[in-house]
Amino acid sequence: MKLATLKRGGRDGTLVVVNRALSHCQPVPSIAATLQQALDNWPSLEAKLQAVYAAMNDGVLSAAEPFNPAACHSPLPRAYQWADGSAYVNHVELVRRARGAELPAEFWTDPLMYQGGSDAFVGPCDPIAARSEDWGIDLEAEIAVISGDIPMGAGPEQTLGAIRLLMLVNDVSLRNLIPAELAKGFGFVQSKPASAFSPVAITPDELGDDWQDGKVHRPLTVHINDKLFGQANAGQDMTFNFPQLLAHLAKTRELSAGSIIGSGTVSNKQGNLHGSSIANGGVGYCCLAEVRMYETIETGAPQTPYLKFGDTVTIAMYDHHGHSLFGAISQRVEPYSA
Amino acid sequence: MKLATLKRGGRDGTLVVVNRALSHCQPVPSIAATLQQALDNWPSLEAKLQAVYAAMNDGVLSAAEPFNPAACHSPLPRAYQWADGSAYVNHVELVRRARGAELPAEFWTDPLMYQGGSDAFVGPCDPIAARSEDWGIDLEAEIAVISGDIPMGAGPEQTLGAIRLLMLVNDVSLRNLIPAELAKGFGFVQSKPASAFSPVAITPDELGDDWQDGKVHRPLTVHINDKLFGQANAGQDMTFNFPQLLAHLAKTRELSAGSIIGSGTVSNKQGNLHGSSIANGGVGYCCLAEVRMYETIETGAPQTPYLKFGDTVTIAMYDHHGHSLFGAISQRVEPYSA
Repeated sequence: MKLATLKRGGRDGTLVVVNRALSHCQPVPSIAATLQQALDNWPSLEAKLQAVYAAMNDGVLSAAEPFNPAACHSPLPRAYQWADGSAYVNHVELVRRARGAELPAEFWTDPLMYQGGSDAFVGPCDPIAARSEDWGIDLEAEIAVISGDIPMGAGPEQTLGAIRLLMLVNDVSLRNLIPAELAKGFGFVQSKPASAFSPVAITPDELGDDWQDGKVHRPLTVHINDKLFGQANAGQDMTFNFPQLLAHLAKTRELSAGSIIGSGTVSNKQGNLHGSSIANGGVGYCCLAEVRMYETIETGAPQTPYLKFGDTVTIAMYDHHGHSLFGAISQRVEPYSA
Repeated sequence: MKLATLKRGGRDGTLVVVNRALSHCQPVPSIAATLQQALDNWPSLEAKLQAVYAAMNDGVLSAAEPFNPAACHSPLPRAYQWADGSAYVNHVELVRRARGAELPAEFWTDPLMYQGGSDAFVGPCDPIAARSEDWGIDLEAEIAVISGDIPMGAGPEQTLGAIRLLMLVNDVSLRNLIPAELAKGFGFVQSKPASAFSPVAITPDELGDDWQDGKVHRPLTVHINDKLFGQANAGQDMTFNFPQLLAHLAKTRELSAGSIIGSGTVSNKQGNLHGSSIANGGVGYCCLAEVRMYETIETGAPQTPYLKFGDTVTIAMYDHHGHSLFGAISQRVEPYSA
C-alpha cells in the first residue's frame, strides 16, 4: 500500500491513498483524515485502507484525482518523534578516518543514534531553506521507517512487526556548524535543520523480496543538479537493521505510533576516491561529506564544495522495472524567507 | 489562564480550562478538543479560552467538574518537539568540577541544549517506570515553556512574544547510562526516558511580577519521600532566559506551535555541601546528581543513592500566598510493566 499527504487541509494535511503506479490518489476521510490518525488506529484501519488501494490498482479511479508529488507534504508533516541512526558504520568510519581518529570497536555493536527535531518537516519538493551558505549545507540520503506502538524493552523480533511504513529522507546537515555543536557534548540542535521525506510512504510488502532482514535491498539514487551522484544499495553494509534500531530506541521508554526512525546516511564500502565515484564506475555517495572525506584522506583536503543556493538535490528509489517506489524528493537550496 | 488535559478522550486527552484555585475544570469542546488544537489556532482561540477562565474565577461553575490532578495527563500528552536547555550553568559547572574538568568559557554565552523524545510523555501522577534500578534513576526539576510558531532566525525579543504557556517538568535521567551514551557524541537517547509535566499549564500573566526578563522568579519546591529536598529559586542564576533558549533553537529552523523548551535542572549557586542542603539552611537541590557532585568534590565520592523502586518525587511551585500555581508532579518509581 502507498500513502501520501496532500498539503491542503491544515497543519497535518490530507491523507490520500496512492495507486501503485503513482498516477492517482484518493482522500479517505471516512477512514482517516490524516496519516497520524491512521497510525493511531492502524490495527483497525489498515484493512480498510488496503481495500481502497486494491480497488485503485484494479482501475477503480472514479473518486481519484491525478497524483502530483509537488502538492505533497512529507507523509507526516510533523511527527511526535524523529530519531536517526547511523546504521552504515562505513560512513561513520570514514568520518573518523578523515579527521585521523580511530573508530571505537563498540560502534560495530552499539548503534549510534540522535534525537532529531520533528515539529516542522518540509515537503518533498520544498526548498532546503538556509540563512547562509556558510553553514556548509549538505544532503543526507537515507531510508526511514514509521513505527506503531512499541513497549519499553522490546527486542528486534517484536519491533520488526511494528514497522508500518517506509520512506526516503533527506536529512539535511549543516556541516560547518557540527564540530562546535558536537564538541558541547549534547548532540545536534542547530546543525540539523528541517528534514524532507519522500512524497509517498509504502508498506514493506510493496518491496517484495527486496524487504529482507529488516533492510531495504535496493539502490538509493541521488542526483545533484541533474547529475547522478550516488546509487549505493541500502541493503548492503547496513550494520544495524531497522528492528535493531527500534529496539535500541525502545530500551528505556515506550515508543508511540508515528515514531520515525532513520537509517543514517546510506553508504557502501568502496576502495578509494578514484574507485568510488559514479564517473569511475563506483556507486557514488549519499552525501557530499563522504566524497570530501575520501578527498581529505587521499589528498589532504576536501575539494568538492557543499551545496550553494540554486543547487538541486533529487533522491529516489526504483523497482526492478525502473518504476519509482516512493516518488522523488526534489529540493532546491534557497535563502530562507519567513 | 490555567489549562490542563484530562486522560479521557484518546491519545491527546481532553483539554480543560482550570480555575485559578485549581478546584474545578471544564472541557471546552466548542473551542478546542485538545491543547494542541488550541495552540495550533492560539491567536483566534485565546480570547475565547480566557473568557471561560474569567467566568470560572467569577464563580460560574455550572458546567465545571472537580479538578483532580491524578486524572490529568501532561498538558501535551505527546508533543511535536521537546528541547531542553541547560540554562543554570552553575549545575553544568558542578558536573564538570565533580569529574575534574574545566567549564569551557563559551558555556556562559552559548546555551547547551539537547533534543528530547516527545512522543510519549507520562502524566504528572504516573509512575517513573524503569526496567532496572541500576540505570541510576534521578529526577530533574525544571521549568518549561510551550511556544507558538516561530520563524527561523527569530531573536529573543521576537520569541518572548511567542511564549504561550509555562509548566513544571520532571526530566527523568538515567545517570548510569549517560557517560557511555554521551561519549558516543550524539547526545541523549537511552539515558532520557519519558518526562512528566505539571497537571496545569499557565499563561505567563498568572505569575504577575514573578514573570520577568523571560524567567520565573519563584522557588521550585522538590520533595523526595515527603522530605523537603530543594527550593531553589528558578529566577536566580538562570544564565539564559526562555526567549534566548527559543532563539538558540530557532537559529537554523522554524519552530512549530506546541514546541516545548525546558530550562534544564534549576540550580542556585551555593557555598559547599554543608551550606547547600535544606537541613543546613541552604536551598537544596533539584536533582540527586547535584548533591552527589558536592559529595564527590568534598569527600571524593558520592554518598546519596539514586532513586529506588518505591521512592516518590514531588515537584511544585507556590505563589506568595502558598497556593499551588501548576498543581504538583507526584511520581512513584516503579518497575516497568508493558
